[in-house]
Amino acid sequence: MEFEEITPGPLLAEIDSPDDLKKLDPEQLVDVCDELRDFIVDIVSIHGGHFGASLGVVEMTVALHYVYDTPKDLLLWDVGHQAYGHKILTGRRNNFHTNRKYGGLSGFPKRSESEYDTFGVGHSSTSISAGLGMAVARDLDESDKKVVSVIGDGAMTAGLAFEAMNNAGVMNSDILVILNDNCMSIDPNVGALKEYLTDITTSKTFNKLRDEIYDMLGHFKSAGDKMRKVASKLEKAVTAAITPGGLFQALGFKYYGPVDGHNVDTMRRHLEDLKDIPGPKLLHAVTVKGKGFAPAEREQTKWHAQSSPFDKITGKTLDPDTTPKPPKYQHVFGEAVVELADENEDIVGITPAMPSGSSLWPLMEKYPDRAFDVGIAEQHSITFAAGLAAEGKKAFAAIYSTFLQRAYDQVIHDVAIQKLPVVFCIDRAGLVGADGPTHHGAYDISYLRGVPNMIVSSPMNEEELRDMMYTASEYDEAAWAIRYPRGRATGMDYPEGFKPMEIGKGQKLRDGDEVAILSFGPFGNYVMDAADDLAKEGINVGHFNMRFAKPLDTYLVEEVCHNYDHIITIEDGTKLGGFGSAVAEFLADKPYHTPTTIMGIPDRIVEHGTQKELHQEVGLDPESIKNKVREVLKTTVLKS
Amino acid sequence: MEFEEITPGPLLAEIDSPDDLKKLDPEQLVDVCDELRDFIVDIVSIHGGHFGASLGVVEMTVALHYVYDTPKDLLLWDVGHQAYGHKILTGRRNNFHTNRKYGGLSGFPKRSESEYDTFGVGHSSTSISAGLGMAVARDLDESDKKVVSVIGDGAMTAGLAFEAMNNAGVMNSDILVILNDNCMSIDPNVGALKEYLTDITTSKTFNKLRDEIYDMLGHFKSAGDKMRKVASKLEKAVTAAITPGGLFQALGFKYYGPVDGHNVDTMRRHLEDLKDIPGPKLLHAVTVKGKGFAPAEREQTKWHAQSSPFDKITGKTLDPDTTPKPPKYQHVFGEAVVELADENEDIVGITPAMPSGSSLWPLMEKYPDRAFDVGIAEQHSITFAAGLAAEGKKAFAAIYSTFLQRAYDQVIHDVAIQKLPVVFCIDRAGLVGADGPTHHGAYDISYLRGVPNMIVSSPMNEEELRDMMYTASEYDEAAWAIRYPRGRATGMDYPEGFKPMEIGKGQKLRDGDEVAILSFGPFGNYVMDAADDLAKEGINVGHFNMRFAKPLDTYLVEEVCHNYDHIITIEDGTKLGGFGSAVAEFLADKPYHTPTTIMGIPDRIVEHGTQKELHQEVGLDPESIKNKVREVLKTTVLKS
Repeated sequence: MEFEEITPGPLLAEIDSPDDLKKLDPEQLVDVCDELRDFIVDIVSIHGGHFGASLGVVEMTVALHYVYDTPKDLLLWDVGHQAYGHKILTGRRNNFHTNRKYGGLSGFPKRSESEYDTFGVGHSSTSISAGLGMAVARDLDESDKKVVSVIGDGAMTAGLAFEAMNNAGVMNSDILVILNDNCMSIDPNVGALKEYLTDITTSKTFNKLRDEIYDMLGHFKSAGDKMRKVASKLEKAVTAAITPGGLFQALGFKYYGPVDGHNVDTMRRHLEDLKDIPGPKLLHAVTVKGKGFAPAEREQTKWHAQSSPFDKITGKTLDPDTTPKPPKYQHVFGEAVVELADENEDIVGITPAMPSGSSLWPLMEKYPDRAFDVGIAEQHSITFAAGLAAEGKKAFAAIYSTFLQRAYDQVIHDVAIQKLPVVFCIDRAGLVGADGPTHHGAYDISYLRGVPNMIVSSPMNEEELRDMMYTASEYDEAAWAIRYPRGRATGMDYPEGFKPMEIGKGQKLRDGDEVAILSFGPFGNYVMDAADDLAKEGINVGHFNMRFAKPLDTYLVEEVCHNYDHIITIEDGTKLGGFGSAVAEFLADKPYHTPTTIMGIPDRIVEHGTQKELHQEVGLDPESIKNKVREVLKTTVLKS
Repeated sequence: MEFEEITPGPLLAEIDSPDDLKKLDPEQLVDVCDELRDFIVDIVSIHGGHFGASLGVVEMTVALHYVYDTPKDLLLWDVGHQAYGHKILTGRRNNFHTNRKYGGLSGFPKRSESEYDTFGVGHSSTSISAGLGMAVARDLDESDKKVVSVIGDGAMTAGLAFEAMNNAGVMNSDILVILNDNCMSIDPNVGALKEYLTDITTSKTFNKLRDEIYDMLGHFKSAGDKMRKVASKLEKAVTAAITPGGLFQALGFKYYGPVDGHNVDTMRRHLEDLKDIPGPKLLHAVTVKGKGFAPAEREQTKWHAQSSPFDKITGKTLDPDTTPKPPKYQHVFGEAVVELADENEDIVGITPAMPSGSSLWPLMEKYPDRAFDVGIAEQHSITFAAGLAAEGKKAFAAIYSTFLQRAYDQVIHDVAIQKLPVVFCIDRAGLVGADGPTHHGAYDISYLRGVPNMIVSSPMNEEELRDMMYTASEYDEAAWAIRYPRGRATGMDYPEGFKPMEIGKGQKLRDGDEVAILSFGPFGNYVMDAADDLAKEGINVGHFNMRFAKPLDTYLVEEVCHNYDHIITIEDGTKLGGFGSAVAEFLADKPYHTPTTIMGIPDRIVEHGTQKELHQEVGLDPESIKNKVREVLKTTVLKS
């Protein structure tokens, strides 16, 4: 199917900027919402992308751009995968089909993409904090810009959001926070805040209590003048005490809501009112993730994002690809951790809000008492794991590389300094693809290698992942990071059970002549392909699967130096401070010299695209490896 | 004065473990508290150390060890500088005079030091999170241990604590959180939570409201049977709604308090009652930092810690050292940022709860609208700075190296990816001394160098610090990290005003023969001393003050390779992935080879002591530099 086949509805077709939206009558907004929702479903059903979140904020998005004077007024989306409607209304409708594609629109708001994208995002829980910074800048500039930060109830549980609320509540700067309460992150939200919000919206506590008290006050009001006066005073006091949102009021925010986030007229009127109310305030809007698309409303986790074309009525995948495929690395982890837990009852698993993304759900299903989804709370997830480890549990923390950045201090302060043997199963390590720069796991080798009491390893295939996990589960002398990429493993046949792996030992895969390639992690498979091809040209490269960036197999590196003229290292991480750097550090003070070329992610922001496209772009695909070998050989020959 | 002169009171003298404490009658605990307080004042008045925090929790500490069966029951202190009483009561009284000294007791709880120290600490806000991990481990083990996490109201504002509360509130695991509410961190606490707690304790809102309503209900109760019945029902409902601590109840915790944290009998009875109440619960204890020592109660920030001997009645420093000293680096920063702000009205300053520690207070005094203490909220401090930068402000974030670890994701995701020109003024970089491993700024060069769009620099003296700050204030193409150590600068005469500094340019300080030393930051001064001494032996080392770890002055490095046989790099940071690593990476693929020795902090946890002692221990003092040069020369001579 081609993009040309997607026709926006008649109103949407005329909206090239929020100015066009503002020309419409308020009554027409319902139709705009319908058209916008249809357009999103149409586009995503063909081109894939995040889905549920954007459908859930259609009315909010339309109301916001109708009421506020964007881009002068500053609108911040949290996480940002709900910003499809925002992008479509702000001049990006006609190239929205390039969303998340190489060279196309980002799946998230991005400052360099549009003046309407005030703050780049991808990770959760930044919008209040950044919005407060902008509000304070606005105050210093004595401007009358408005600042609106939209944040989900899941994102609200992260510490960063709380820190920002606590600060905003006393700054008295004018800011509106819209709490988009849909009870979901990618997986259903968990935690006390979620239950608190459910209490508000389902009236179990607040509304019922309020009604009861008002009822009773009614009795008194009919009991004569003096009583009526007292009752009226009492009513005021009670109202103050039992207004829902006391939590937010405690943090210094005026609370409004809950309101129906799918009634665009309600949303519009509330926003217009709130524009004139100064200071920090929060509007609690209740929405449904996937709203208006029945399959997505039913199965919200599944429909968080879609990559294959689907039927836009039934949700069924069109022309499903039924060829058998290797398992994803995350599933290899998910199965292995259950097998290990079967044998070792001290094993527990922890995920910060990613049971499906990290495949912790099999452990959660089989051992619900030993697997913990702590919500969007990366810092807590690691300190919590450290607490478990301090009491003798073998904690497997399943976390994306990019999100572990949020828990870096906890890794150092709570795990490494105390030498607690927490196992970090780091998923989405390396370039992740369509999610782009905010999600690339480019830094973990570099930021973990400098931490004492930390093993840093990466498997080349499913068997090594399993054996590393097993070995880590039996090892109590240090913390252990095992990093593996997004996507599918090799599809190898691996034996049942587990084998211990020697810590800090690499493996020779292939003998060669002048050039040896030292690979760290699954890029070893690219190297194997490249080496096969080069052999056909008569170039024999040595290949060593190093497995460990720390401790480095220095014995093997020395042996390589002895036998080869040139080393190439390759890793799916930044070139600065990573695995290649470990090799360079080791060789730096040696009296002999084996020139070493470090291949890795360059020191710049790499944008989005498929993993393959990005590997090509940054020169880490098999073709680039071959070229690098040929290039190196030329220099080596020139030298000799 | 010698330790022998400090005699504990008669009760304290007999307490070698909490078991001894438990033998006493409850009525004797008041005396124990007095003796414990005296002992702490005596010790600290001679030997220095943290102070106010421990005096504030004397009664709490005694009550906790009296009521709970430690170490079986698990007691977690947050931050941990309030744990002096805890250490003294748990077998460490007789060597408490070694507190914070090289080879002596740690100033913080530490697992390897005592079985009573259940979780090592130093940074704030970990105790609930780690305690929850331990509580869950206890549940899995079906043990009946109790878990008690003590946390200050300042620490409670950090995101990690909120994340843990949000998780604990639904886990239904048995845990007691004691909120030690003294309105202070090192500086006075700020934020909405602090105001909320003040409201509770000063009755402005809750207690007054409660009284008013109860008053009014009294009217109705006298109005006849039917009315009385309704009023009684109403009273119950209203009580539920207006109990103080609604914020914590919203997070799933039972709230108890506020109670007087300085009444040991009250504390003991409350703890005994709470022992039998299951699930997550919070006891709100109101205390005074520095309690019982008048000078410390009056000036709480000043008396947070003391390093010089003082008179224990007046608080006056004994034999004050009046020799003039160079300014501290933090003060050079604090003055320079004001001078820059005088000239550039876009400059703003941010600190997470460290106005005095980071010397942001001069800016806060002169430009209160442009300097922000956001509380213990490192993550927020950086995203907030990014928001300010996104709206055109030049944000100077003043933060300790070790605390910037808490905001690592914000550095990458909110600043670097968006190429926002935030200036990070990183204080306490390198080995910090008596605070020890939790506070060493050992990792920042390594974890920042891998981040794109980030300049990493370190000045060798006050003039360079000022010029780097000035140049950074004018530079908008990248973020800029300027790291400087704890302690005093060189005392040089520097010119008024500022000079621009060429980015990525090092400086030759001294020509030499075989060996060149490339220094990064103030360790250059050690190198100068070492080079002077070596010259007397006839050894002429070259010395280059590199200033930038990123971008590295590769031109200068190449020149050095051309002119010298061996390079030594030196930095006050981990050897793995830091400045030396940058040099090694650059040289790795060169056809020529200049052996390069990397001097830095070794890849292990370095304990506490004076900075000088630690520099000696890890081999980074002038003597070690000289030895390294001699050693290298031997090898070089052997080679040639």
